[in-house]
Amino acid sequence: MSWLGNIKWDEQGLVPAIAQEKGTGTILMVAWMDREALRLTQETGHAVYWSRSRKKLWHKGEESGHQQIVSAIRVDCDADVVLLEVEQKGGIACHTGRHNCFYRELQDGEWVEVLPVLKDPEQIYK
Amino acid sequence: MSWLGNIKWDEQGLVPAIAQEKGTGTILMVAWMDREALRLTQETGHAVYWSRSRKKLWHKGEESGHQQIVSAIRVDCDADVVLLEVEQKGGIACHTGRHNCFYRELQDGEWVEVLPVLKDPEQIYK
Repeated sequence: MSWLGNIKWDEQGLVPAIAQEKGTGTILMVAWMDREALRLTQETGHAVYWSRSRKKLWHKGEESGHQQIVSAIRVDCDADVVLLEVEQKGGIACHTGRHNCFYRELQDGEWVEVLPVLKDPEQIYK
Repeated sequence: MSWLGNIKWDEQGLVPAIAQEKGTGTILMVAWMDREALRLTQETGHAVYWSRSRKKLWHKGEESGHQQIVSAIRVDCDADVVLLEVEQKGGIACHTGRHNCFYRELQDGEWVEVLPVLKDPEQIYK
């Protein structure tokens, strides 16, 4: 599939992928994709990433049920960043139980948590 | 400054930084930052990146005038991605003369351009 060949994969064969919430435009998370993850994302309509820590494909929501339904796939000018427009199942993208991963903001030289935990991670990952 | 020490810089001392437009939530671009770029971004209130191709600090807009005024700096749960909320001067973030860099969308197995060129790059970079 030539559209996959247009992506400029890095030395590890990966690109960063941003998941942005449809409707609100909120950035939910950034993860990494290899060629297979992106192919599966397009094929299944569900976000699939490459887990660098676990070194395997990561079907987002496979444990938590917090899947991401993908409505658009974009790529940037250098073709080295992928942008997904998604619907976030359960309203929780972050493994900390928050709506999204960008919950710390720099205020007066300190990182301050600005988003609440919606669900205890121990309840999410049993 | 300890808040800089909280960032999980990669092996090259870099993290990806997303510039998101204030108000619209549109993702303008993704670039890279080293410690100095992030420090300068906070200090000056203007987005400063690290150009991996030119291997030097890149004060966004230094040639084009298309500066980014930063109103918030966030970091994700793993502290390895930075998110900037910015006002985009000139309404053009991409070096191709488009509003943002994510102007290609996957449609029926092909990347289709979905954003217009607002200004000829030759007029931007003289």
